[in-house]
Amino acid sequence: MFVILVYDVGEKRVAKALKTARKYLYWVQNSVLEGEISEANLRKLKDELKKLSDESVDSFIFYSFRTTKYYDREIIGVKKGGQGLFL
Amino acid sequence: MFVILVYDVGEKRVAKALKTARKYLYWVQNSVLEGEISEANLRKLKDELKKLSDESVDSFIFYSFRTTKYYDREIIGVKKGGQGLFL
Repeated sequence: MFVILVYDVGEKRVAKALKTARKYLYWVQNSVLEGEISEANLRKLKDELKKLSDESVDSFIFYSFRTTKYYDREIIGVKKGGQGLFL
Repeated sequence: MFVILVYDVGEKRVAKALKTARKYLYWVQNSVLEGEISEANLRKLKDELKKLSDESVDSFIFYSFRTTKYYDREIIGVKKGGQGLFL
C-alpha cells in the first residue's frame, strides 16, 4: 500500500523519529515521508514509532491507500526530497 | 475532492501560509491541513499560496484524491486538530 506519514514530535525525538521512518519510507519534506510499504512493515514502523514517542505530546498521522489510482500529487515551489534522492 | 496539504515555508511566511490554507482546509497538525475542497477552490488556494510564497525556498505538496474510498487514516499519539475543531 501507499502511505503518507506526517509527524509532529518533541524536539528531542525528531532525529530518532526521522531515522526510524526512513528505514521504511522516503523523506519528502520537513516531517513528511511517503512510499510503498507492506502491511507487515507498516505494523513494524508503527510499533517502532510508538516505542520511541511520548504519546502524550507527539503525533503521527498515517494516511494509507490501497491504490494510488485516484491520487494526484502536485508540488508548488521546491521539491525537497523524494524517491531516489539520498538525503 | 479530498486534499492533504503539507508545507515547509520560511519562518516569515508561516503565519500567512497557514491563514490562507485554513480558509479552505482544516488544520490537523503542524504544517499539515486536509479537507474536502472543490476544484475551483483548490485552484484559488494554489494561486494564493503561490503569491505569498518564495518559490525558491518554500515547498507545498498537495495530495489530491478523487475518492476517499481506498483511504485509511490512523493517528498515533495526540490528535492535534481536525474537522470541527476551532483553533
